[in-house]
Amino acid sequence: MTDYAAPLADMRFQLAEIAGIGEIAGLPGCEHATPDLVDAVLEEAAKLAGAVLAPLNRTGDQQGSRLENGVVRTPEGFKEAYARYVEGGWNALPFAPEHGGQGLPMALATAVLEMWNAANMGFALCPLLNVGAVEALTAHGSAEQKRLFLPKLISGEWTGTMNLTEPQAGSDVGALRARALRDGDHYRITGQKIFITYGEHDMAENIVHLVLARLPDAPPGTKGISLFLVPKFLINPDGSLGPRNDVRCVSLEHKLGIHASPTCVLAYGDGGGAVGTLIGEENRGMECMFTMMNNARLNVGLQGVAVAERAYQRARDFARQRVQGRPMTADATGASPIIHHPDVRRMLLLMRARTEAMRALAYYTAGAIDRARHHPQAEMRERQQRRVDLLIPVVKAWCTDLGVDIASIGVQVHGGMGFIEETGAAQHLRDARIAPIYEGTNGIQANDLLGRKLLRDRGAAARELIAEMRAVDAALAARPGEATAALRRPLAAGIDALDSATAWLVEHAAGDAPSAFAGAVPYLTLMGTVAGGWLMAKSALAAGGADDAGFAAAKLATARCYAEQVLPAAPTLLPAVMGGATVMGFDLDRF
Amino acid sequence: MTDYAAPLADMRFQLAEIAGIGEIAGLPGCEHATPDLVDAVLEEAAKLAGAVLAPLNRTGDQQGSRLENGVVRTPEGFKEAYARYVEGGWNALPFAPEHGGQGLPMALATAVLEMWNAANMGFALCPLLNVGAVEALTAHGSAEQKRLFLPKLISGEWTGTMNLTEPQAGSDVGALRARALRDGDHYRITGQKIFITYGEHDMAENIVHLVLARLPDAPPGTKGISLFLVPKFLINPDGSLGPRNDVRCVSLEHKLGIHASPTCVLAYGDGGGAVGTLIGEENRGMECMFTMMNNARLNVGLQGVAVAERAYQRARDFARQRVQGRPMTADATGASPIIHHPDVRRMLLLMRARTEAMRALAYYTAGAIDRARHHPQAEMRERQQRRVDLLIPVVKAWCTDLGVDIASIGVQVHGGMGFIEETGAAQHLRDARIAPIYEGTNGIQANDLLGRKLLRDRGAAARELIAEMRAVDAALAARPGEATAALRRPLAAGIDALDSATAWLVEHAAGDAPSAFAGAVPYLTLMGTVAGGWLMAKSALAAGGADDAGFAAAKLATARCYAEQVLPAAPTLLPAVMGGATVMGFDLDRF
Repeated sequence: MTDYAAPLADMRFQLAEIAGIGEIAGLPGCEHATPDLVDAVLEEAAKLAGAVLAPLNRTGDQQGSRLENGVVRTPEGFKEAYARYVEGGWNALPFAPEHGGQGLPMALATAVLEMWNAANMGFALCPLLNVGAVEALTAHGSAEQKRLFLPKLISGEWTGTMNLTEPQAGSDVGALRARALRDGDHYRITGQKIFITYGEHDMAENIVHLVLARLPDAPPGTKGISLFLVPKFLINPDGSLGPRNDVRCVSLEHKLGIHASPTCVLAYGDGGGAVGTLIGEENRGMECMFTMMNNARLNVGLQGVAVAERAYQRARDFARQRVQGRPMTADATGASPIIHHPDVRRMLLLMRARTEAMRALAYYTAGAIDRARHHPQAEMRERQQRRVDLLIPVVKAWCTDLGVDIASIGVQVHGGMGFIEETGAAQHLRDARIAPIYEGTNGIQANDLLGRKLLRDRGAAARELIAEMRAVDAALAARPGEATAALRRPLAAGIDALDSATAWLVEHAAGDAPSAFAGAVPYLTLMGTVAGGWLMAKSALAAGGADDAGFAAAKLATARCYAEQVLPAAPTLLPAVMGGATVMGFDLDRF
Repeated sequence: MTDYAAPLADMRFQLAEIAGIGEIAGLPGCEHATPDLVDAVLEEAAKLAGAVLAPLNRTGDQQGSRLENGVVRTPEGFKEAYARYVEGGWNALPFAPEHGGQGLPMALATAVLEMWNAANMGFALCPLLNVGAVEALTAHGSAEQKRLFLPKLISGEWTGTMNLTEPQAGSDVGALRARALRDGDHYRITGQKIFITYGEHDMAENIVHLVLARLPDAPPGTKGISLFLVPKFLINPDGSLGPRNDVRCVSLEHKLGIHASPTCVLAYGDGGGAVGTLIGEENRGMECMFTMMNNARLNVGLQGVAVAERAYQRARDFARQRVQGRPMTADATGASPIIHHPDVRRMLLLMRARTEAMRALAYYTAGAIDRARHHPQAEMRERQQRRVDLLIPVVKAWCTDLGVDIASIGVQVHGGMGFIEETGAAQHLRDARIAPIYEGTNGIQANDLLGRKLLRDRGAAARELIAEMRAVDAALAARPGEATAALRRPLAAGIDALDSATAWLVEHAAGDAPSAFAGAVPYLTLMGTVAGGWLMAKSALAAGGADDAGFAAAKLATARCYAEQVLPAAPTLLPAVMGGATVMGFDLDRF
């Protein structure tokens, strides 16, 4: 059986060279992220992920969470594992010290979160959702809400949920109908919410629901939505648990994957109205939601990285151990492990190269978040925030699309055994498939990239990024040789294509918006593919100076594989970016 | 709930214009495939597929086949549906009239088989495996074997299985260990076989196992394998059922998809040896297996087409009915079905364009099989057989890879509902995932394409195909205009790339075989992608003369979508085809 070993060497390298953790540790408020501490955190997290969470991944999938008489029971071992996670202080890692957080950089938290998700995505969803609740409360909660709820949410003793979706309101949040009535100093919430991750479970003593609902006099659409805090158990003024609130789980979804994670239908107010308090102002709920969206989207993108890494490790271990056929390679004689077969190696190297590229983009973006928060110069904070805003939808969509693809290759490496559930490879594919859907479908991400991030500033942030990409191209040019040339050609072509696509969209979107938006997903894929190539080239340059020659050679090889097998496709996305008229011209009745 | 409606308009069009069914009906032995009969067969098959098989697809997945006390029970309704299938004479469609077949062209049988697989892939696997048994017996069986078994296998009253795999012998068939001992005029078979599709079930009164095993004095490897016919119930000389043979199902696999199809572990000879008779000559079993492999691989490729079509129809119907958000298109006001959203349209058109391209390649290849069998001129038969041999691995691998990808897009169109099993979209993805694996993994197909189909004739058959592709390019050139130019540019670039890749592999494979074979899958994908573009261009040219202007416009649009969104990637596969050295150079210990 394969368990998960965090890829610490690549994580350390990418934190140092791509996220720039050393530089981040020099920013005000990040000083305690010393090299020693960073190393210790990574080592300890790897232990918990490998020894405690990973072994529960398969049983979590098999057993799933179950609803019995209104109580959701998580799979065997989850409750104990969560207790260890809380005891270890892991939940507090990225949060501000004011309410008990450890205040460590987002870049480090991102590497750690990758481990939880790679080890056990069904488990990791619980803390992932909690992050959103903490951020919303931190930014918009009242002093009393913060006092009563933040310490317990930050420690992880309580968990948080996000309640947006209703049957008729998915991507269109503005269509939601849950009601809130003013009732003295609080509100009474009624309505049904669906797709609530860890909406009910047995791992924490309380669950804090953040619920979007409408006041009776609210304007229609997204401008009439307010955000409420609705705890499962009401909290007494002294912070102790009070009576059960009027919210219950009425069913769990039967899903393709992430079986361990209970996806709940929650009924609010069947007994007269769940008691909630307002977060922020009335009718400003959407703004509160947007606060937490950037990080949630980064974290879901990271799930794509994580599941790809896990699928890679499983496929590699299988390929090393499964003996089948006589390979044509000189390094093997007689029947040999299938890792000696050229096509198996191709699959493994392609999985690995793309996973490293995705990790680079995710860690880079996390590092930019740290700079946007902590850099002493306002101009730099703004510049970094522009970068974050631009790249977040790319990290979310590109990494989750690749996560599915890489998990699917992982199945393929296993041959017939890959299709057998006991092998475990199929679970990664099933689990990976949710990530392009939730936290805003990848189509929504592409619309966000094009509409909010590209057209609003008429491509300024994108051009800023492209200029930095060209600097790496110039650095490659300064190191002549066949190896760097092999990286440079497709990267330069990709950057040119990204530049052209950006200019074309900025020019044409006003005249024919539907056609432009029909090219949004190809544009996002183009940006992700080129950004991956940019950071892989940067990695290859940096690895040249690494002490470990084997690591450096491997990094150069994965960068080259990416340049040969992935990056060349980037310029060919241009016709799709500009081909929206074909899509929109197709007769609807002919579909 | 979506049920399946066979895409009869496109099927008729492609049979006529791409497979050339009219011309095939003029070949000796194919005369009764008149236009009226072809139409009637398609219409009736569509009824059975839509009304009987499709409604059992979801329940078949939910219930699965179950093993109870050695008996395998197929899901509710399967037995009755199979009886209707047999009564309708459907199983006999493609087989020679000599033993009760209807002798209809393979091209027509292929369209019909697409319907069974689209309606219910788990069901369709039973007849699919049967085809292999009929072909092996027809080509290599003794007169007595044919007399006793062929009529019942052709009618479908009995079903056939293929027994190759053992735990240690998957892709490496030569590693198998099942034993056969001579015992008078028959043989006694012992050993365990795994992954036996419909190895045991309750839909037919007898099951005829074709089993690969070794004689005690056989040479090692594939040269020492013999093929045996081992019926579940022995047959009396008068053709009636005799006693139960010594073979039983000991377990069923728990699989990612195709739950309705029982994947059996079969134990032979626990009671002293299952009685079997030899098919063909001793130690020549692999040749017998190769006989049936071409058609089996075509049929599995067709499963990719079929599941893609089904996923497309489900996604389209959902997109027409699911109201969410206000689209930016002029043809919709207020909250509208999501088919009005540009990105949803892009996904649907991309699903459809690629499905049509795959269908074209599959039907084209089926038509080539008819010509290779029935053309009066030997030279033409040989030419067509070369084409078939070249394209079979491409149909198998390219269509099944795309099948997974398209089914995954189908999930995405559904948003959150796509991840919920009740919706049905996820089943198509789970079902589709087996097709790149079985009947020779897609890596094996690529090795076959490169090793047997390309290098043996040093690219002759490939260049023959490329020349025909260039003829379509010339035909496009003869019709000036923006629409044809949009098709022509990427097609010409794709053909050039295929030509270059072919020449490069022929030149370099001898010197560095492992590196060349590390580029085999990218080469296969390149050939499939370009072949799809070639046939879509051919379709667009032919559709220009169609009576139905709406159909012609739609075909032109899907051809253009393919040219804009799919075909441009073809030339970018060249660096991957030639990049095997990067793959093979990666330090194995660094994976």
